[in-house]
Amino acid sequence: MAKKVAVILAGCGVYDGSEIHESAAVYVHLSRAGAQMHVVNHTKGQPTEETRNVLEESARIARGNIKDLKELDVNEYDAVIIPGGFGVAKNLSTWAVKGKDCTVEKDVEAIIKGFHGVKKPIGLCCISPVLAAKLFPGCELTVGCDTECEKWPYAGTAAAIKELGCKHVNKQVNEVHVDAKNKLVTTSAFMCNSPVHEIYDGIGEMVKYVLIN
Amino acid sequence: MAKKVAVILAGCGVYDGSEIHESAAVYVHLSRAGAQMHVVNHTKGQPTEETRNVLEESARIARGNIKDLKELDVNEYDAVIIPGGFGVAKNLSTWAVKGKDCTVEKDVEAIIKGFHGVKKPIGLCCISPVLAAKLFPGCELTVGCDTECEKWPYAGTAAAIKELGCKHVNKQVNEVHVDAKNKLVTTSAFMCNSPVHEIYDGIGEMVKYVLIN
Repeated sequence: MAKKVAVILAGCGVYDGSEIHESAAVYVHLSRAGAQMHVVNHTKGQPTEETRNVLEESARIARGNIKDLKELDVNEYDAVIIPGGFGVAKNLSTWAVKGKDCTVEKDVEAIIKGFHGVKKPIGLCCISPVLAAKLFPGCELTVGCDTECEKWPYAGTAAAIKELGCKHVNKQVNEVHVDAKNKLVTTSAFMCNSPVHEIYDGIGEMVKYVLIN
Repeated sequence: MAKKVAVILAGCGVYDGSEIHESAAVYVHLSRAGAQMHVVNHTKGQPTEETRNVLEESARIARGNIKDLKELDVNEYDAVIIPGGFGVAKNLSTWAVKGKDCTVEKDVEAIIKGFHGVKKPIGLCCISPVLAAKLFPGCELTVGCDTECEKWPYAGTAAAIKELGCKHVNKQVNEVHVDAKNKLVTTSAFMCNSPVHEIYDGIGEMVKYVLIN
């Protein structure tokens, strides 16, 4: 039977929403795997300088086929995926402003803990692994490489994950790390300064391991 | 040497801009083929009820790496690709309001005719083939199937293309039509009510034939 996967979006566009290419890659790979995809969204938590509505913006990626995060029932899904983009750090959490001292928006926290509590897989990429770092101290994650260079301009995120008491595992952009105990599947995506097809392939691996876990 | 391809965007999102998944698919396939991609944009022609800036919106897809259509020099590129989405019918032309009696925005017309005039390939998908139908009477195009059904809800577009004196060639979503004389490569994309990975694959074919033509 087709797996049902919830995809949580946080707006539309790398700098204040869900990263578009990561989200689109999740769509293609879920579609090819024959999974049923349901897109949900968080409607609050808009940064104060913004007047855009996160649900309306995310609907641009979802082509209108989207519902509010509040309607998400963990029992109805086999897995959840949260693409990256600054929307994760601005709308789904306060990471963009507070880093490791951030809070995860309470509805988002409840959903992630809900999937985690019943051992359903959680797929995270780019910046979204920080949500798990904050919620599940001791878990294992990758956001790519922990040494800053031209290829890995955001390597400081790995250090922040370690400071939160989690294990950061260095991985290339086309690889994932699977934390089997916590059923977390993570990949670096645009944390890596890499051609977009390599990011696409890495997200393909993430989707694959989310669906087989 | 790597082919240089201009990608023209018209905003961000299916209903008033460039269709996000089509645009993202163009990115992935160009990237995998090793092509150099340069994203350009049309900054005017915003529908009156909208206050969004088309360049700023398109930059959401382009991750900020974008320039104005006015700066596009045909001599610097090997090909041009215009993804679909209502932005093509609202911002790049008046098709959304006037159908076959539309006008193509003059800068966009100049660019398309510029590539056409020096026999450089033009890739179009979804609704964007209507731009060629309007500019090159007698050309051959596909927007999918010309018989309306659940799978092809926008089949009327094929009829409009024929009324403009062009030949419409029925093709499946994973296929392209190549008008060798005019170097036009077209595919139906979201004109077809189809799983997104099939649309992704059709756009892959479009990119392939744009790069080998």
